[in-house]
Amino acid sequence: MILVVCLNPALDVTHYVSAVDWAGVNRPTAVHTRPGGKGLNVARTLHALGADVLLMGLAGGDTGRAVEAALRQAGVPSALIPISGLTRHTFTVVDDAGTTASFNEAGPEVTAHEFDSLRMAYLEALATTDAVVLSGSLPPGLPVTTYAALIQAAAAAGVPVLLDSNGAALLQGVSAGPAIVKPNLDELAGATGKILSASGTVCAAGTVCAAHTVDRAAVREAATELRAAGADAVVASLGPAGLLAVTAEGCWHAWPSAVAAGNATGAGDAVAAALVHGLVARRPWDERLRHAVALGAAAVAAPVAGEFRRESYLDGLRPVAVRLEEVR
Amino acid sequence: MILVVCLNPALDVTHYVSAVDWAGVNRPTAVHTRPGGKGLNVARTLHALGADVLLMGLAGGDTGRAVEAALRQAGVPSALIPISGLTRHTFTVVDDAGTTASFNEAGPEVTAHEFDSLRMAYLEALATTDAVVLSGSLPPGLPVTTYAALIQAAAAAGVPVLLDSNGAALLQGVSAGPAIVKPNLDELAGATGKILSASGTVCAAGTVCAAHTVDRAAVREAATELRAAGADAVVASLGPAGLLAVTAEGCWHAWPSAVAAGNATGAGDAVAAALVHGLVARRPWDERLRHAVALGAAAVAAPVAGEFRRESYLDGLRPVAVRLEEVR
Repeated sequence: MILVVCLNPALDVTHYVSAVDWAGVNRPTAVHTRPGGKGLNVARTLHALGADVLLMGLAGGDTGRAVEAALRQAGVPSALIPISGLTRHTFTVVDDAGTTASFNEAGPEVTAHEFDSLRMAYLEALATTDAVVLSGSLPPGLPVTTYAALIQAAAAAGVPVLLDSNGAALLQGVSAGPAIVKPNLDELAGATGKILSASGTVCAAGTVCAAHTVDRAAVREAATELRAAGADAVVASLGPAGLLAVTAEGCWHAWPSAVAAGNATGAGDAVAAALVHGLVARRPWDERLRHAVALGAAAVAAPVAGEFRRESYLDGLRPVAVRLEEVR
Repeated sequence: MILVVCLNPALDVTHYVSAVDWAGVNRPTAVHTRPGGKGLNVARTLHALGADVLLMGLAGGDTGRAVEAALRQAGVPSALIPISGLTRHTFTVVDDAGTTASFNEAGPEVTAHEFDSLRMAYLEALATTDAVVLSGSLPPGLPVTTYAALIQAAAAAGVPVLLDSNGAALLQGVSAGPAIVKPNLDELAGATGKILSASGTVCAAGTVCAAHTVDRAAVREAATELRAAGADAVVASLGPAGLLAVTAEGCWHAWPSAVAAGNATGAGDAVAAALVHGLVARRPWDERLRHAVALGAAAVAAPVAGEFRRESYLDGLRPVAVRLEEVR
């Protein structure tokens, strides 16, 4: 079983508006409400892949109830610990041109006592867990060492962890020795202080694409730093330029044959789901990365964040290029 | 008892953001969640005035539950008929400069069967009701004759109705003979096709204020039209220029001594509450209007839409000017 921990789920509300009046009253032409938060997207994706998954998290109030109901309806097994605070909303406005503004609430204040209830359930679940995913931001009230503590507990039980977070929670988590961390370029740059890409300029060492010029040598250096700080493997997502993995066995670059147009929100969560799925299935690194690139691209192509079409994923597997850049 | 009907309540979520990135990710510095919808504001205001009030409406899903819980916490008696649809969100973004963008969902689809449950409860409540307030938009699924039908039922029971709506629901409602309709300038212009104000120009017949030049003669004509169409009295809210009432007894203009700075959202609901409160108390028209102007100004001065400070209301009563413009 794969245990996905989502400490700060959300009820995502998306308003579609033809043309937005940013200083007036708008009447959305369509409204979508669905549970969100990175961990929830990972759990939904794993469930869609047919994996045995349990979503564990904290939820409170009417928004928390709505998240729980939506997970139940989607058939994703969940264990949500009740909290007195209100599970957050995130709010997104999309206009006809596809311009997207999102408003992400920080989330409810979580008490030490409430987190302790989750920790007890987590420790108990570890006995039947093959891998853990820790994904997303920490809600207010929880210390930045929270993920590190959960990783240590998993290590003590012999369970590998994939960590997908940012800032201090990522850095502290890395020091506890997760099996995989999956930062995007911003998160990797933030964690290491390195400059990894420059828009609009062509870098000799980099891949040139429409959106970014990624300095892959700098990414490798930064990923190697995170490995030195404790992570067993670092998979950096480079946006349209694919994934760069620095592991104990070597360094790989995997990239899609074509840049997918669509909604990139949730693509990172699809990558995380594929990586942990490959870890549990004991796929070799090149195969894990091939699946992760294809699933990420399928998620971008799907209209709703955190979803994907099965054919689009399977059709996308073959054209992924995977290159071993260095053997250890 | 005053019966306030709110067919399309909402859970109002307001995000405060220092400076908005309309094409990126925003992290609000503060979030307020409260029940909304015009009828709810009217009921809350009447409750704060000490009136015996019952809020009757339709509510569904987790948002409906949140609205119900917030009313209970505020001590406002309510009878919310459960519906299968989800009570809507409204979403507002406010930046540090006070620029406000709002996103108002249309609301849940209401079935004829669900509305019939409300209608039965309404008919029963009329026996102990002194006045009815019908306020706000109709949710999808209900015909534009909905308010007209509720007004006819009240008339049959000898209960006067204040109607505050717009468009076809207002026009149909007027034909059923409400005691008072309370359009703002936009609603009155929409209902009659007349041009009632021009920003930035000075009109000989009008009141000149910072925001509007109101053509009071045109407003009187338009209000007289709505009276001819069936309304017993028309109270047009002119924004900072106060209220213009056209009634069977005559025509009054009432205006505040100074233009209040603040949040105008909900000020119209405070005016509606004061007008029905004065109707039930059998206050003469000039006194009703004095209270309505003072309460509207107090609502503008309060930071949260639909609330007011008692002292600000009472202190504001004396400086209101009321002029009888025509006797019938």
